[in-house]
Amino acid sequence: MEATIAGCAELGVPGIGLWRDQVAELGVARTAILARAAGLEVTSLCRGGFFNAPDWFDDNRRAIDEAAELGAPVLVLVSGGLPEGSRDVDGARRAVGDAVGRLVPHAQSAGVRLAIEPLHPMFAADRCVVATLGQALDLAEPYPSSAVGVCVDTYHLWWDDQVWAQLARAGAAGRIACFQVADWITPLPEGVLLGRGLPGTGCVELRRFREAVDATGYTGPIEVEVFHEDVWSRPGGEVLKETIERYVEHVL
Amino acid sequence: MEATIAGCAELGVPGIGLWRDQVAELGVARTAILARAAGLEVTSLCRGGFFNAPDWFDDNRRAIDEAAELGAPVLVLVSGGLPEGSRDVDGARRAVGDAVGRLVPHAQSAGVRLAIEPLHPMFAADRCVVATLGQALDLAEPYPSSAVGVCVDTYHLWWDDQVWAQLARAGAAGRIACFQVADWITPLPEGVLLGRGLPGTGCVELRRFREAVDATGYTGPIEVEVFHEDVWSRPGGEVLKETIERYVEHVL
Repeated sequence: MEATIAGCAELGVPGIGLWRDQVAELGVARTAILARAAGLEVTSLCRGGFFNAPDWFDDNRRAIDEAAELGAPVLVLVSGGLPEGSRDVDGARRAVGDAVGRLVPHAQSAGVRLAIEPLHPMFAADRCVVATLGQALDLAEPYPSSAVGVCVDTYHLWWDDQVWAQLARAGAAGRIACFQVADWITPLPEGVLLGRGLPGTGCVELRRFREAVDATGYTGPIEVEVFHEDVWSRPGGEVLKETIERYVEHVL
Repeated sequence: MEATIAGCAELGVPGIGLWRDQVAELGVARTAILARAAGLEVTSLCRGGFFNAPDWFDDNRRAIDEAAELGAPVLVLVSGGLPEGSRDVDGARRAVGDAVGRLVPHAQSAGVRLAIEPLHPMFAADRCVVATLGQALDLAEPYPSSAVGVCVDTYHLWWDDQVWAQLARAGAAGRIACFQVADWITPLPEGVLLGRGLPGTGCVELRRFREAVDATGYTGPIEVEVFHEDVWSRPGGEVLKETIERYVEHVL
């Protein structure tokens, strides 16, 4: 965390999205101080959600508090998969909507916006029953857009021919709370979690996404979010430089 | 192939969907004779498609001829992924529609129906740009339903909240040419191809699918199609018996 914050500051990256587990290692207060001292905006906190965990309510309230303390305007929500032994994906999605609703008052009072993130359908069983931008927007709809938005992630959405219409819908409703980019590379690794590629290494039309999100009037941050053992095994500074170059070449 | 045909006949399975590579090992003529002698209907041939291969046109015409010789009424088409180096998924889908159209005359004269199969979106880059039932139906639409239908496969479609409406659309247009069932189990294996589970081992609402397909008026065969190393490593006869039991319990 310390090296990443220092590296971002050194290379002129204006903001950083943080993950709770890494924040927890350094401590919320210390992370907040470090980021502020480096002049770095904390753009989002990942993640809340996993609404079928027994302690989801308290844990998500804590996540909202952590986001507030970090100065992150957005808490990203990954819904969790089907409850153990269940096949009722429709019911699981409805339960996500209800759970988000129960978090809204605390999020509003903390000044943190909740962002429902649709994950790629390959995660629908075990990680996130919300699998399309359309589904995420349906779930957000009952709540004020200032309290509940969506997270647009190119890795999860690129295959969907409906995504362009849904981006326009999201923009018109003021629902885009977070915009993340990663590329799709194959073959997918076992478990498929750590397959996200650096911008330009895969097949996603990243610039088309950026332009479509721009066209909705979104002016917030764009986060590059990559998980891949090959990337993680390299020196962080080198990865950061390459990420910036690739971002400029393939996203901007 | 010989053992499978004999096993199906022995256990009263009325039909079998065949794969081209396995048919090729035994020979098309000999496979046709064996199936006929066993009283087994050949329900479909998998697979044509892969329309970005250089020889796709000739190879698909051969696949149509093989289906006709086997007495299979349906050739399943898996479109193939993005062309090498391309990011144009919209263009790739359009090209699939055009390629299917170029095969229609030969398929019609051979009496073989083409079935466009949407594969799960995790295959969209490298195996099948057609990722939803809605997309498959859009591509089939310009052609007569007697010539071009779709293949409904529970493994690929279960996560999609639009699938029920699209099944009704497919039924109303007489487009369901093939119905395949498999279950979704996790974690997904590396490369994600061989992750299909026996009915009832995963999270798919198989009976809901069967009832929805029934409700469209479809009266054709239901194929259980499972790829998994754990299944393949077991004795075939044992797997066949379990498949029948699971089919009766979870699909019928």
